[in-house]
Amino acid sequence: MTKFMDENFLLTTETARILFKEADKMPIFDWHCHLSPKEIYENKEPDNIAQLWLSGDHYKWRAMRSYGIDEKYITGDSTDYEKFEAFAKAMPYLIGNPLYHWTHLELQRYFGIYETLSEKTAKSIWEKANEKIRAGGFTPRELIEKSNVKCVCTTDDPADTLEYHELIRKENFSCKILPAFRPDKALNIELAGFLPWLHQLEATAGEVIDSFAALKAVLKDRIRFFEEMGCRASDQAFSYVPFEPSDDIELELIFSKAIAGEKLSQTEIDKYRTALMQFLAGEYAKLGWAMELHMGPMRNNNTKMFKAIGPDTGFDSIGDDQIAFKLSRFLDSMAEKDLLPKTVLFTLNPKDNYVLGSMLGNFQSSETGSKIQFGSGWWFNDNIDGMTEQMKALGNLGCLGKFVGMVTDSRSFLSYPRHEYFRRILCKLIGELVEGGQYPFDEETLTKIVCDISFNNSAEYFGLEC
Amino acid sequence: MTKFMDENFLLTTETARILFKEADKMPIFDWHCHLSPKEIYENKEPDNIAQLWLSGDHYKWRAMRSYGIDEKYITGDSTDYEKFEAFAKAMPYLIGNPLYHWTHLELQRYFGIYETLSEKTAKSIWEKANEKIRAGGFTPRELIEKSNVKCVCTTDDPADTLEYHELIRKENFSCKILPAFRPDKALNIELAGFLPWLHQLEATAGEVIDSFAALKAVLKDRIRFFEEMGCRASDQAFSYVPFEPSDDIELELIFSKAIAGEKLSQTEIDKYRTALMQFLAGEYAKLGWAMELHMGPMRNNNTKMFKAIGPDTGFDSIGDDQIAFKLSRFLDSMAEKDLLPKTVLFTLNPKDNYVLGSMLGNFQSSETGSKIQFGSGWWFNDNIDGMTEQMKALGNLGCLGKFVGMVTDSRSFLSYPRHEYFRRILCKLIGELVEGGQYPFDEETLTKIVCDISFNNSAEYFGLEC
Amino acid sequence: MTKFMDENFLLTTETARILFKEADKMPIFDWHCHLSPKEIYENKEPDNIAQLWLSGDHYKWRAMRSYGIDEKYITGDSTDYEKFEAFAKAMPYLIGNPLYHWTHLELQRYFGIYETLSEKTAKSIWEKANEKIRAGGFTPRELIEKSNVKCVCTTDDPADTLEYHELIRKENFSCKILPAFRPDKALNIELAGFLPWLHQLEATAGEVIDSFAALKAVLKDRIRFFEEMGCRASDQAFSYVPFEPSDDIELELIFSKAIAGEKLSQTEIDKYRTALMQFLAGEYAKLGWAMELHMGPMRNNNTKMFKAIGPDTGFDSIGDDQIAFKLSRFLDSMAEKDLLPKTVLFTLNPKDNYVLGSMLGNFQSSETGSKIQFGSGWWFNDNIDGMTEQMKALGNLGCLGKFVGMVTDSRSFLSYPRHEYFRRILCKLIGELVEGGQYPFDEETLTKIVCDISFNNSAEYFGLEC
Repeated sequence: MTKFMDENFLLTTETARILFKEADKMPIFDWHCHLSPKEIYENKEPDNIAQLWLSGDHYKWRAMRSYGIDEKYITGDSTDYEKFEAFAKAMPYLIGNPLYHWTHLELQRYFGIYETLSEKTAKSIWEKANEKIRAGGFTPRELIEKSNVKCVCTTDDPADTLEYHELIRKENFSCKILPAFRPDKALNIELAGFLPWLHQLEATAGEVIDSFAALKAVLKDRIRFFEEMGCRASDQAFSYVPFEPSDDIELELIFSKAIAGEKLSQTEIDKYRTALMQFLAGEYAKLGWAMELHMGPMRNNNTKMFKAIGPDTGFDSIGDDQIAFKLSRFLDSMAEKDLLPKTVLFTLNPKDNYVLGSMLGNFQSSETGSKIQFGSGWWFNDNIDGMTEQMKALGNLGCLGKFVGMVTDSRSFLSYPRHEYFRRILCKLIGELVEGGQYPFDEETLTKIVCDISFNNSAEYFGLEC
Repeated sequence: MTKFMDENFLLTTETARILFKEADKMPIFDWHCHLSPKEIYENKEPDNIAQLWLSGDHYKWRAMRSYGIDEKYITGDSTDYEKFEAFAKAMPYLIGNPLYHWTHLELQRYFGIYETLSEKTAKSIWEKANEKIRAGGFTPRELIEKSNVKCVCTTDDPADTLEYHELIRKENFSCKILPAFRPDKALNIELAGFLPWLHQLEATAGEVIDSFAALKAVLKDRIRFFEEMGCRASDQAFSYVPFEPSDDIELELIFSKAIAGEKLSQTEIDKYRTALMQFLAGEYAKLGWAMELHMGPMRNNNTKMFKAIGPDTGFDSIGDDQIAFKLSRFLDSMAEKDLLPKTVLFTLNPKDNYVLGSMLGNFQSSETGSKIQFGSGWWFNDNIDGMTEQMKALGNLGCLGKFVGMVTDSRSFLSYPRHEYFRRILCKLIGELVEGGQYPFDEETLTKIVCDISFNNSAEYFGLEC
Repeated sequence: MTKFMDENFLLTTETARILFKEADKMPIFDWHCHLSPKEIYENKEPDNIAQLWLSGDHYKWRAMRSYGIDEKYITGDSTDYEKFEAFAKAMPYLIGNPLYHWTHLELQRYFGIYETLSEKTAKSIWEKANEKIRAGGFTPRELIEKSNVKCVCTTDDPADTLEYHELIRKENFSCKILPAFRPDKALNIELAGFLPWLHQLEATAGEVIDSFAALKAVLKDRIRFFEEMGCRASDQAFSYVPFEPSDDIELELIFSKAIAGEKLSQTEIDKYRTALMQFLAGEYAKLGWAMELHMGPMRNNNTKMFKAIGPDTGFDSIGDDQIAFKLSRFLDSMAEKDLLPKTVLFTLNPKDNYVLGSMLGNFQSSETGSKIQFGSGWWFNDNIDGMTEQMKALGNLGCLGKFVGMVTDSRSFLSYPRHEYFRRILCKLIGELVEGGQYPFDEETLTKIVCDISFNNSAEYFGLEC
């Protein structure tokens, strides 16, 4: 019987074990995450493991609710230890859940704790972990350095001043912290937050935005500013990528209605979004940025909890919109004008793995290896099955050797072992191909492939100088 | 080479073998099936194995048609032996089909026959099996007791008087036979059967139903009556769960049109269904019933055969409607009013496994462990792959340890080995996780998890006293 | 460690090895492909391996683009060797791609080359392969005979005169080359090519086609002509199979609009297609032809490349239309009139495997074994995962033992090892069932099943006399 999560965790073949030794040496480029630049700058010591684990991680909150734990012990007013204990109690029942692995990887790698977490061990692990924390080395920057991270791309609104990025720049920090451009609030014209956001953008930019043309002009300036701040990527989220062509006159009418507070039809919303995305994609293309398209989330499904505790608290799930036709038309509209940027397509719904895996091939070019990328299994797919299925689809349909690999998409400074998790899964998959006679055991080539996917491909793709 | 279906069938690891020994001892709670209370009450001896196997099982009929057998030997006027022989002839070609396993599990467990069924063995198995039947022990109640079933929830129309449930109550039967509330005929306002059904309901209730309000009042009474008869669950089937809000005035107009025999638009149908489901869900919530939502079937696809031999004869298949958004809105509309009952979401289309597996997490609460459940692989997914994929999705996205487990959904008194089949698949999955180093070999916890999923979780969830 | 692609390639069990020995002896019936009858008739010697591999194979072109190779080395004006070298360079990065296996199977089987292709070996493999080619045996007919192919069904337009089929008939060629009827251009009434095609059909038929009735009459004649030429199958491609009932008057109006060059609505297009497909299906049924329905492609996604190098050049991908309801209604409309032909349902989107696998069972009959077939994993699914998933779905939902098996769907005379690939995957799957205790090791029955799926079932299904 294989031992639980030992050094050969997931490395089912000798080939996998050989390759992982090399992959494990590679640094980390976390090119899409939700770490807070403010927290990185402020670099505070945490008080205890509950603060590190449970203060903001909606993956864990969902899991606790699924077990049946009361909200009081999740986002409520119970003590940190009570919350930790409630999480520990649920843990053994999360068999088959990636949280089970993430939790124990984090205990092993950051705390040197090899016990398994449960109601029985909660107290002892709480004490050992907090002792470690008190001994130091658990500030955001220490955790990032300890994890051998060379570069982090955060997620930043166009209206953001990037002041913390400025401040971090002045510090002597070994890891680059770059902004990434996330214009979701500009795209979501139908939401209540659109006008307040627009005013915020006006304030940041020092411009009046009274037309669609003015909005585009300001966004163009913001993009240039992000570029100066080292930005290499944009990212946007959709249930589906829209494609509803329109013209300038109509777009200005739609924009006028929106700023007058009138309700827009779905077609109008899609026309606006299409036009704005086409504009933005063109700007990204000119700067060589990569455009990440995250498709599939259905957000804030629980109105009562949304009113109580807001967004990003664990009430999102997977949508099932049709995506193929419109996505194809959008990408083609840019390719036809030679303005399609490097693009990473992500899906939250694994039914779309083959749609995206085959879509890539329509728009590749010699600009870079696999210019159009299929993003790694993400969020609800960030598990052994999801990541394996994504890589198999990419292998079958595209060029796995040019894959830009893993992102954490995380809000937690303890989440870097997910890169290790990914690399183990990658080496498992490749090891099984090799030892199943499907690929020759050519150590040099195989090592190159796993190291490229672990780090080099993304560094090259995003133009990271390091 | 592993022996064909021996005691270690599907138990690929030592851990699986250890765990299955314990799971196998658990009684059965078959909380959703189509067994006939009348047949349970009448408790007749079958004449031969063809009557047990082939008189009403549309799974077997489909398989025979797929092999190419003439309808005469399926639902036609050939003899019982001819039908049995035709089935035996097709059997070896059903390699990879769960019927192959169900058939041999039933031969082994109920008849002590370990030969494999084929044209060659048809005669000898026919004789041995019928000899066993003649020796007794094959009435519905004997089969249920022999299978260690503690409770069965049947499927009953609101207009049903539950007279056979009354009669069974008075018998001294070790297994509880409870009704379950299935209001499909109330929901299907657009079908030709709606008005005849409405008159039947009027007759049962002794009330005139001339408005939507009157219908709701009568259904409320029926729900109370079912509750008195021990009902703990409702169940409803949809191609998709509708969500089309409306108001009382419009709903009464729609209802008036329906009882006047006018054709309704799809929007009107969806408005009616939404309102009725919201009403029913609220009633279920008040009583602590569980609401089962079965999504995805496309029924009666073959008009000619429907006219010839009616519904439920093997001409249904899997639909591919979009379900995520409307289902989310329906569940949210109840959660917002604190009237969302315990809910079990089933899908017939495995493309929706990740949609449902992630939907659960939006509406959990501390009311019970995993208040929102992901129903087991069902009907066309009631096979090793389908059940495994459902459990992996639930494991990755929710809390597998709180899963309420298997239902037979069956019309046959010989179908209880499907619970054994499920438990073997569960132990196989968990054994592979453990021996793959993904979960520690903690025998006490693992035993608890498999026994909970096999029986305890569902007993607790549905409030079975036993 | 298993050796790379040796004689036991993919044969993971002893049972698989035993069964493959028998399957491998079976001849090939390639009942759907895109081989050119003209090239078969002309039977030219190729100059070099680049011409065989890279002159028309859009699978390879896509792969090269995905790696990042410039179009100059794909469809551009570089030399044959430069193209070959570019392909060789990409090869090692195509880990997990079926092209990796096809390439090396072709090198092994036709050239006796057991090295793996890469930038390093490009020169030496180029020389060895071309030497082999110069030694002879590489004309289309020699390759077909060498591959033990008994019959090939090509893909032919109704307007085609089948002159090369006539010419081949007069040659003494051991392999039957039969036409198959592909009326896509008749169905695609909305495309610019419709009217030019209609004139071509008028020319071939020597008839004026000025009405829908006239079109049907001419197509009926063409079908009779194809029948005389040995045709046994038709094949048609759809993103979804339409179902929009209409009547003769409306259909003539739609047809008039089309020939007047007016734009049709999507509903009009679907009405026309529905009516034409119903007509064609009835004709096929009368002749005992099989009707192949290929669902799911989304074609010519890259406008710029389409304008530059035309269709079928590697810019197609997988669509995600809903298909279940309309397909059911179309098939039922034919079954109700007893005019449903033998039908093979193919999907390009694996999300539909369970939809199709269960749809079959609605329309089976005793006319032949599995009259409604689920077509093999095809195009983007023609890989180990895709073919395995299709066979598992068919096994779980239908009757795998009656499966008509593999088609190459290929444009290349070197693609016959894909049948070997398929047979290895089939034997792998069945071997794993047997050695996992899920099916008895009954060598006679198992051998019959794999040989039937490899050849006999399709020969019987399509009525091949051999």
